[in-house]
Amino acid sequence: MATAVEYLWGLFGVCVVALGFAWWLAHWVLSHKEGSKEMQDVARPIQEGANGFFKTQYGTIASLSVVLALVIFLSYGYRPVNPSEANIGSLGIRSICTIAFLLGGLFSGVSGLVAMWVAVRSNSRVAAAAKVSYNDAIQVAFRGGAFASTLIVTLCLFGIVLAYAVVYGSFQRLGVTASQVPLLIVGYGFGASFVALFAQLGGGIYTKAADVGADIVGKVEAGIPEDDPRNPAVVADLVGDNVGDCAGRGADLFESIAAENIGAMILGATLSRTCNLPESEQITYTLFPLFVHALGIFCSSIGTLSVRTKETNSNKGSGSSESAPLLSGSKASKQYEDPMAIMKRGFLVAMTLGFVGIWVLCYVALQTSEAPNAWWHFGLCATIGIATSYCFVVITEYYTDYLYFPVRRIAAASSTGSGTNVIAGVSVGMESTALPIAVLAIALLVVYWLGTTSGLSNKLAAGIFGTAVATMGMLSTSCFILAMDVFGPISDNAGGIAEMSMQPPEVREITDRLDAVGNTTKALTKGYAVGSAALAAFLLFRAYIDEVNNYLPSNRALTSVDLSQPEVFVGGMIGAMLVFLFSGLAIRAVGNAAQAVVHEVRRQFRERPGIMTYSEKPDYEKCVAIVANAALRQMVAPGLLVVVVPLFVGFLAAWIGRVSGKSLLGVQVSAGILMVGTIAGILMALFLNNSGGAWDNAKKYIETGAYGGKGSEAHKASVTGDTVGDPFKDTAGPSLHVLVKLLSTLTLVFGPLFLTSAGIEVISG
Amino acid sequence: MATAVEYLWGLFGVCVVALGFAWWLAHWVLSHKEGSKEMQDVARPIQEGANGFFKTQYGTIASLSVVLALVIFLSYGYRPVNPSEANIGSLGIRSICTIAFLLGGLFSGVSGLVAMWVAVRSNSRVAAAAKVSYNDAIQVAFRGGAFASTLIVTLCLFGIVLAYAVVYGSFQRLGVTASQVPLLIVGYGFGASFVALFAQLGGGIYTKAADVGADIVGKVEAGIPEDDPRNPAVVADLVGDNVGDCAGRGADLFESIAAENIGAMILGATLSRTCNLPESEQITYTLFPLFVHALGIFCSSIGTLSVRTKETNSNKGSGSSESAPLLSGSKASKQYEDPMAIMKRGFLVAMTLGFVGIWVLCYVALQTSEAPNAWWHFGLCATIGIATSYCFVVITEYYTDYLYFPVRRIAAASSTGSGTNVIAGVSVGMESTALPIAVLAIALLVVYWLGTTSGLSNKLAAGIFGTAVATMGMLSTSCFILAMDVFGPISDNAGGIAEMSMQPPEVREITDRLDAVGNTTKALTKGYAVGSAALAAFLLFRAYIDEVNNYLPSNRALTSVDLSQPEVFVGGMIGAMLVFLFSGLAIRAVGNAAQAVVHEVRRQFRERPGIMTYSEKPDYEKCVAIVANAALRQMVAPGLLVVVVPLFVGFLAAWIGRVSGKSLLGVQVSAGILMVGTIAGILMALFLNNSGGAWDNAKKYIETGAYGGKGSEAHKASVTGDTVGDPFKDTAGPSLHVLVKLLSTLTLVFGPLFLTSAGIEVISG
Repeated sequence: MATAVEYLWGLFGVCVVALGFAWWLAHWVLSHKEGSKEMQDVARPIQEGANGFFKTQYGTIASLSVVLALVIFLSYGYRPVNPSEANIGSLGIRSICTIAFLLGGLFSGVSGLVAMWVAVRSNSRVAAAAKVSYNDAIQVAFRGGAFASTLIVTLCLFGIVLAYAVVYGSFQRLGVTASQVPLLIVGYGFGASFVALFAQLGGGIYTKAADVGADIVGKVEAGIPEDDPRNPAVVADLVGDNVGDCAGRGADLFESIAAENIGAMILGATLSRTCNLPESEQITYTLFPLFVHALGIFCSSIGTLSVRTKETNSNKGSGSSESAPLLSGSKASKQYEDPMAIMKRGFLVAMTLGFVGIWVLCYVALQTSEAPNAWWHFGLCATIGIATSYCFVVITEYYTDYLYFPVRRIAAASSTGSGTNVIAGVSVGMESTALPIAVLAIALLVVYWLGTTSGLSNKLAAGIFGTAVATMGMLSTSCFILAMDVFGPISDNAGGIAEMSMQPPEVREITDRLDAVGNTTKALTKGYAVGSAALAAFLLFRAYIDEVNNYLPSNRALTSVDLSQPEVFVGGMIGAMLVFLFSGLAIRAVGNAAQAVVHEVRRQFRERPGIMTYSEKPDYEKCVAIVANAALRQMVAPGLLVVVVPLFVGFLAAWIGRVSGKSLLGVQVSAGILMVGTIAGILMALFLNNSGGAWDNAKKYIETGAYGGKGSEAHKASVTGDTVGDPFKDTAGPSLHVLVKLLSTLTLVFGPLFLTSAGIEVISG
Repeated sequence: MATAVEYLWGLFGVCVVALGFAWWLAHWVLSHKEGSKEMQDVARPIQEGANGFFKTQYGTIASLSVVLALVIFLSYGYRPVNPSEANIGSLGIRSICTIAFLLGGLFSGVSGLVAMWVAVRSNSRVAAAAKVSYNDAIQVAFRGGAFASTLIVTLCLFGIVLAYAVVYGSFQRLGVTASQVPLLIVGYGFGASFVALFAQLGGGIYTKAADVGADIVGKVEAGIPEDDPRNPAVVADLVGDNVGDCAGRGADLFESIAAENIGAMILGATLSRTCNLPESEQITYTLFPLFVHALGIFCSSIGTLSVRTKETNSNKGSGSSESAPLLSGSKASKQYEDPMAIMKRGFLVAMTLGFVGIWVLCYVALQTSEAPNAWWHFGLCATIGIATSYCFVVITEYYTDYLYFPVRRIAAASSTGSGTNVIAGVSVGMESTALPIAVLAIALLVVYWLGTTSGLSNKLAAGIFGTAVATMGMLSTSCFILAMDVFGPISDNAGGIAEMSMQPPEVREITDRLDAVGNTTKALTKGYAVGSAALAAFLLFRAYIDEVNNYLPSNRALTSVDLSQPEVFVGGMIGAMLVFLFSGLAIRAVGNAAQAVVHEVRRQFRERPGIMTYSEKPDYEKCVAIVANAALRQMVAPGLLVVVVPLFVGFLAAWIGRVSGKSLLGVQVSAGILMVGTIAGILMALFLNNSGGAWDNAKKYIETGAYGGKGSEAHKASVTGDTVGDPFKDTAGPSLHVLVKLLSTLTLVFGPLFLTSAGIEVISG
């Protein structure tokens, strides 16, 4: 068996190779023609807008992060020390956590920046490639997305490995073992979550404020098509796709992977240590999540390379923008192979490789003489994780695709006005929470059961590790999923550029085709993201309990989070309330900013009548500035809220606990906030994502000619629903995915402090 | 000290006097003139429609109740027996629970029927009284409401006293003590909850489907005013006010009082028994909730009698429809005294008497030599309960009254279209959850602390009883609050009758004035109802734990509900999911039925052009039939869902627990469903109620002339929000109040069975 150091070098090697692959993808994409001068004229302001916003946004995030880093550094002076860390010393612990926090934030920021940098350069190249061939266009768009995803996922892994290696390398001689390291680097996950929260929130507000504002005046009032160059908000809208869907979603997945990997490592470490496995197996159990992760990058790369179509360009496409549903098999358009089918082939390659690979990994890394059956029990857990993600995607498709009843119901309700349209959408969204929760409940209990029956002596820990392995299984395809997701904004932008630079119809047909699929992939990714957040919730929560117990003598361990205690019940209420309040603030932010855009666009149309006749150019920059300012201003309050409130309540509860002699009260109340907040967050995210997606497609369904088609009263009503759904599905919903994980990483970092304040007698070395 | 039997006779006496007072109120109201023939012509179809729906609806509810009664009777054969019940025997236990369940349902139904019977006869009398004097109109309307509320509240108390007396009288000789009885009559609360769920749901669907349908075609498409006789859906709308707001809300309050009284009695019994108080004090602690309740009826009666205005009729009123806000003091109209101010005087009388009375009761009933300070600790708890209800009402007013920022924000958002209007309303609703939860958190912890420091030896039980006393304090004014609430539909109907029978303007001015206040009282009542549901949640939950522990040996008692167990966590997820699914189904039901109404009204307008010129009478009955059928059909699925799913999951968990050797799993998972479901339910109810109320008043604000006033684009947008808010605030929201209490009473009834299935060794006599 290899040593921990050897494994770490191996993982470093994987990262280097993967970064090389990412560089090759970027090089491949950038080597394509940038497109005609008209295209570049359109693309440049998008690049500038995106870069400008990114700089200011991440400047703000950086300042906030530095403040929080200071808080961590100072407050960690009061953190109790557990025996495994006793030799590191207070300053060491403080430094490790603070630096890990900053590292997580920095890597998240860097990966977001580079990914967006390539994305805003891929868009015009996709439009240009569409002039050459369909295959070129889809490949440029997909590989642009794959670059972003590979970079993000690899940098995330690289950061964990780096933090792990540095801590292990520095403190091994002080008695820190490989299985103790994950607890020390929880700051990395928190840093990633913190940045992701603001990235997703700010980006989400930006993109939807621009989108809603552009649609209300452009589509509804002036009756001009989407992405029409006469619309002063169109550039802001295209910038929004990059900063919201690309950078925001990237940061989201970055933090998912960071948080879930570190959480799973903590659980693997606890399991292997409490079962007294040999040192070498403790190492493989602890590092198992990282192995899966490295495997995922590899599989996704192979999958990426297989995304291609044999068909060459044809000037007369069918123009159908309908994409093949997962549920009912592929229904490709006559001329061009359905882009969804093409990507699904790639996904199948990645998933199959991942499935085989994860079984191999289980066999290799989780074999132990103590429990000869454990490896295949965990293999089954991983398989269930993969199956669960598939179920989530299928359910999402059922509720948001217009081939099925729910979206049709919303479309039918549009014929009696916008009121009934909104009512129908809300009800579809709320109802859509049932099936995912049912799937999740079954999956969670089955993998838990598989874990407890694995033969490992610590049944509880083994059961929990089963849920962790299932989450890893689900995440094994995350790199490919993210590539499909980033494909969305790139082809959306390409469509916008083609439209604004007035390309011939055959080019626009190709870009429209890609764009339409982008909407589908975005919806499915959200189903996947919420599924992983839901499945991971329990593992992260148990990691928190494991962590807290590291500070407590075993006869006073935290063994339960008792909702029947009034303080914990109140904590749970506050956790759930935060979800509602946060969603409300995020939605309000979009509404406010969108109104500002509407007033500005109306003003331009009114004061410059030449815009409508193409004789005058609208002032795009003004809208960009309005949206950027609004997004920056309004992301701070909700973001800080969900950090400050749990901290405040946690410390308050710890203080009450100290006064009333309940030494664990602080950690229990925090656990209450975390768990009930997570449950509420997942449900709310499902509701918001699915209702938003359903409204969007109800509108698209009417645009195919149903209920009077475009321009009918039903269509107008459906636009209202679509507008309402925008902040639901692209601002509040995705931000909630981040929120639930932020609650976890926050409690992981500050949990020990909730003990100190209670004046508890902690283990000392 | 009196014996339990003497107290019961005393309570019977109070009930008889209160019923006499209710009869006097009905007599007083009915002795007023029925109104002119035109008025009666309008009132009659409303009466017929309401009676017709009531009969069919309660027929369905009765069938469902009988089935459930059978389930209880049969399944209780497998219920474990605890020592206090050992002598009663299995058949006795089964019969008691089944009969109590049916009794709760029957009394709820009877009180709903009689209350509605008077309400539909008060409406035309209010319209007629408006011809005589303003004071007459307001008194008839309020006393009609007061009759309904006094009857409902008294019948509820009467039922509990009856059940208690019968069980105590029959089994006292078998060793059952006064403090053991409450556990035996939990079926009464479940029966009341079960009926209330369907009453509120069916009535809520009915009233909003008619309202939305009538508004969409009448106000938006045809441009005719509300309650215009030309609108074919107007009678259905007026019927809806009675079956939804009157019968539905009445059933809701009936079950609140039943559930919370029985829960509080269980807690008082446990507290006094575990503290080994003398028998006579055990009796007063156990019966304390009933005393408070009797007191409440008395205070409310005095308050009712003080509702009057000295001003006589004046033919030229100012016509301002603005009501005085609680927050900023009274701003009465010039001519007529503000009806809200008049009712608030009465409320002040009732509240002051209640406040004094509850302190007296605490002094008399909760004095104990074991803890000389206990009585005033609990007095403070009651005071905090009253203060909490006041805070809830004020917060509700802040978020839903157009004098304040939130509603103004929605109105402003209307100027950029219905999309931004809906976005703003959703964000206001979600944000409005924060303050109530903060108030609740503080109140809950303070009263808990007051209880634990009361000096009683069982600190935990004393703390919990503190929350129970706070809830009782809050409920002490419920009778008057319900009277104000029922005042709403009566004056709404009176306005409709005046409008449809084409009364002169001075009459319509008075009825409009009353109607406008009715909207305010409705919103405030909802704030009050959700507050009491929230405060009661914890007490009901603890009553469940007390109950379960009656079956367990003390060394294996259920001491915690551990959310960190995967099964309990899954239970929590399912509980929260039920809230979303139930809300979705309820909202969908309104949407579907409203669409049917829209199509019908459009058809009548199209096929009978004479309707618009008054030359042809619309077919009111058709709309009534459509709405009634839809409401009946669609109330069943969501209603059964929230009964069947918790039962199924509870039994399943009990079975899993039996197989895996976790004997308490069934009760713990049920507790998880209950607690997390309750938290989610309260938040969702706050969101739905407040966003709905805010949309409604944003529209009203625009109608005062803001943003272009009536007929403007902003007004049209605000009508969309109002339409969306209708099912939120009057169907799903109020039904959720019932749902959270139903979850409690359901687990109280079936909790012991979740133990049996686990094959646990229970206490035997």
